[in-house]
Amino acid sequence: MANTFRILISTDNHVGYLEDDQIRGKDSFQSFEEVLLLAKQYNVDFILLGGDLFHHSQPSLYCLREVMGLIRQHLFGDKPCEFNICSDQSINFPSRFQRGCNVYDPNLNISIPIFTIHGNHDDPVGQGNLSAMDLLASVGCANYFGRSHDLNDIKVYPILMQKGDTKLALYGLGNVRDERLHHAWRDGSVSFIRPDSSDQDDQERRQSQEWLDHAFNMFVLHQNRVRHGPTSYIPEEFLDEFLDFVLWGHEHDCRIDPEPRDGKDICQPGSSIATSLAEGEALPKHVGLLEITGKDYSLQKIRLSTVRPFQYTAVALSQVDELRSAVGDAKACQRYLYSVVEDLIGRAEREWEEQQEEGENREDRTMPLPLIRIRVDYSGGFDAFNVVVFGKKFVSRVANPRDILKFHRQRTNIAGENATTRRQRQQQILNDPTSSVPERLDNVRVETLVDEILGRNLEVLPENEMQDVVQKLIDKDDKNAVSSFIKQSVLRMKRSIDGDQRSNIDNLSDQYVKRRATELKQDRFDMYAREQTSRNSRRRARQQRDAMDMNDNDNDE
Amino acid sequence: MANTFRILISTDNHVGYLEDDQIRGKDSFQSFEEVLLLAKQYNVDFILLGGDLFHHSQPSLYCLREVMGLIRQHLFGDKPCEFNICSDQSINFPSRFQRGCNVYDPNLNISIPIFTIHGNHDDPVGQGNLSAMDLLASVGCANYFGRSHDLNDIKVYPILMQKGDTKLALYGLGNVRDERLHHAWRDGSVSFIRPDSSDQDDQERRQSQEWLDHAFNMFVLHQNRVRHGPTSYIPEEFLDEFLDFVLWGHEHDCRIDPEPRDGKDICQPGSSIATSLAEGEALPKHVGLLEITGKDYSLQKIRLSTVRPFQYTAVALSQVDELRSAVGDAKACQRYLYSVVEDLIGRAEREWEEQQEEGENREDRTMPLPLIRIRVDYSGGFDAFNVVVFGKKFVSRVANPRDILKFHRQRTNIAGENATTRRQRQQQILNDPTSSVPERLDNVRVETLVDEILGRNLEVLPENEMQDVVQKLIDKDDKNAVSSFIKQSVLRMKRSIDGDQRSNIDNLSDQYVKRRATELKQDRFDMYAREQTSRNSRRRARQQRDAMDMNDNDNDE
Repeated sequence: MANTFRILISTDNHVGYLEDDQIRGKDSFQSFEEVLLLAKQYNVDFILLGGDLFHHSQPSLYCLREVMGLIRQHLFGDKPCEFNICSDQSINFPSRFQRGCNVYDPNLNISIPIFTIHGNHDDPVGQGNLSAMDLLASVGCANYFGRSHDLNDIKVYPILMQKGDTKLALYGLGNVRDERLHHAWRDGSVSFIRPDSSDQDDQERRQSQEWLDHAFNMFVLHQNRVRHGPTSYIPEEFLDEFLDFVLWGHEHDCRIDPEPRDGKDICQPGSSIATSLAEGEALPKHVGLLEITGKDYSLQKIRLSTVRPFQYTAVALSQVDELRSAVGDAKACQRYLYSVVEDLIGRAEREWEEQQEEGENREDRTMPLPLIRIRVDYSGGFDAFNVVVFGKKFVSRVANPRDILKFHRQRTNIAGENATTRRQRQQQILNDPTSSVPERLDNVRVETLVDEILGRNLEVLPENEMQDVVQKLIDKDDKNAVSSFIKQSVLRMKRSIDGDQRSNIDNLSDQYVKRRATELKQDRFDMYAREQTSRNSRRRARQQRDAMDMNDNDNDE
Repeated sequence: MANTFRILISTDNHVGYLEDDQIRGKDSFQSFEEVLLLAKQYNVDFILLGGDLFHHSQPSLYCLREVMGLIRQHLFGDKPCEFNICSDQSINFPSRFQRGCNVYDPNLNISIPIFTIHGNHDDPVGQGNLSAMDLLASVGCANYFGRSHDLNDIKVYPILMQKGDTKLALYGLGNVRDERLHHAWRDGSVSFIRPDSSDQDDQERRQSQEWLDHAFNMFVLHQNRVRHGPTSYIPEEFLDEFLDFVLWGHEHDCRIDPEPRDGKDICQPGSSIATSLAEGEALPKHVGLLEITGKDYSLQKIRLSTVRPFQYTAVALSQVDELRSAVGDAKACQRYLYSVVEDLIGRAEREWEEQQEEGENREDRTMPLPLIRIRVDYSGGFDAFNVVVFGKKFVSRVANPRDILKFHRQRTNIAGENATTRRQRQQQILNDPTSSVPERLDNVRVETLVDEILGRNLEVLPENEMQDVVQKLIDKDDKNAVSSFIKQSVLRMKRSIDGDQRSNIDNLSDQYVKRRATELKQDRFDMYAREQTSRNSRRRARQQRDAMDMNDNDNDE
């Protein structure tokens, strides 16, 4: 073992997800603790996380206390560190209060250090532009790396580690908006720094060459792997050829078995908690034990045993034999769907047993209420009905009784429309004063809103970045996002203009920004953003949807 | 020194106060760091804080990072701990992830531990009902004590410490709403636990008796000392006779020289930053070096040298000789007030030099822009004018140019009114639909609002606690305050009713609570609370006040 790195890999722990929920509130904390316990049990050299450790960019006191406390409880201790770091740690970990790896802090006893990048959920925000990872680093709970400060010139510096004869170069890149990173990468603005053998004396040159020849090159990133649009993902082909192993965070589906691509292997562990009831989240959840010796590695996948069972299925009512003659008979459909739920609950029980047996961290756990989701296609004359009333039957048996069913229908007239007509339709919805705001918002994307509201006369503020900022305002509730963005944009514009002109521009642009800011505020912008973030509107929107789903003939209990 | 406790005492550091402010944003952090550096310089055994370490109950990531990072940077290290704790630490420090004092954690090297209670700013809120102190404790940055969980039976347990022959019993009580604590104390529900010599064997009895006879008994609290109403303060007479020394937090005026009261000494260090421009905040700010040997103590006060200078004065225009014939001449008044500001700036410069000389922690610091406040009484026919325009002259010389002046006037008709007529007047303001909401809110107290809105049919929800909750909602932006309060009230009511009746009551009270909650939400309550918290309304209110202050004849630049 003296030459073998043992690394526990995990990603997207989303700690704090639904922390206020009476039933599911503890889920994310339990699975995170299981990850830490596994690291201890397998006596690993370190834990490597792929981002989104926290679900919220500004976690609650409760969430911070749990995460820091659990790390302190399980990962602090006397176990000696068996590897060296030979790269410049002040470049690797530029945190304000911790300029080196925490294992080297003489005032802390760290048994198992955590190395992590930030994800899109816990990315830098607010005063000081800090990630929750910065906070973990400042108290010595984690080593935060891979943050890029200049998106026009992204340099990825490796952490160079050595254990016995094995050399590991660990590269990381915290989440950047996909479109922007895609463009930067395509334009050649992303570079992986490799040990340099020029400009050095003989011994240094020999050492660098040795690193270049013998190191195991690993990269961790947190981006879309699935193509969501022409540039809103990172194609696997972008990844440098010299890499041996890529840990892909952000995608929640567990595809932890390494997939070979052009000489490197891609490993996507997936999340340790389901944050949506999508099909991919129903795959069994794993973390990995990665062992690296020289240029070889092996990966053992470890099933998480604390994860709340989740069973998913899709049903097309028109394809169900026993419902052939039941079009319009809501009761018959409900009876059928009850039986599907029963079946899924049974499967969830078997899944739970399985994961208790497979899981390494055995305890005598009671099975928690399972998550159940049926995607119901009701095309062909069937009627949707109230899903909340339907779920009442399962209140004490399912964790999500209110949204077991998800109705959808193939709408031929809409499925066939092209981008222009879709845009026109969205525009109509926006302009329709009779529809309520949440309803309108459900039908349009943020980008469309920004286009509609700001897409005129944007001379100073770059439109695509404006979209980012609005997204940030909505997703992170980051109230300073807009003002700091405006300041930065103006500053950037000022820098691009030379001396003499500048003082005129200063006045002009200040006035412009003031005017624009006022317009922004008093324009519909404010109303939309606030409405969308407020829980009330979400609740109302849900109620409306429920009402829409409710069949007039609904005779249910 | 082997028998002497050396303790650095400080309180109300309000870290994070105005952290977004371009000019004053760093003030609270600098003074907090100065406190830590003084502790190091004087080689103290520990730091004792009197509450309100944080200004916000849910501090920003930035603020948390700074505080934890500074503590780690300055107070972690190899200095050995020279005192013992002989009380039950699991009672003293019942934090989830740290059940003992941090100096005993084998995984942390602590040079100087912090002992602290919570104040009213950083009191427990939100999910898990946590104080930011809990977070500090969970990572080993502080020892949080003195939290009381049952306000009907407040037991104050001492931390029993021993250094050589000196025995120190340290009692603490985190902030409780003054009215409630006042009542509890008056009703005999507050008890100080003392070493008990009954029910023990001989040796234990002897030890307890020794503690009772020889210990130095110290108490730290965070409450109003100044009488704000019949019960909204803690009278000094309430304090138990056996106490030797009381550290009084919450009051920002520095009255650090101990004041003898019935055999005990009261020491009020005051805040380390001015959070309002009141006269008391202009007193020089200090922390104290407390040395305790046996039953004796000495206190050395140490002036803080990083504090931004603040000069305050009050002016009655009608008493100024040179303005005798200037009634109605706004320009003359302004000229005079300009000269007063100049004088105060001069005084601030001398104050800065003085505090650099007196301060222990000498560095070559540039003086920051001073805070200047003139309270202007314009009774006697003088006109108020726009204070923002007035301040423009001092933009680069004063830290608070926008609110240097504070106008007030003796209103005889209002000063003479009694409580009933004041209440009636407030009622009129509330009912006047032509006045804007913020204006109305400026003129009434939260208690009056709660009375007005909820003061009918409050059968289930205790009215006085409801006031607390609304205050919490407004001050802390704690969105769960109302719902968790309602839950608790109902639970309490349920408990007070016996078996049989209960199930009926369950249904009844659930319905009642639902109805009431809906009423609360849709009633004006929501509007008032939200309006009062939103920054927009504050800004608008300020603008309105400014506009009102503006003289029609104002010809200023």
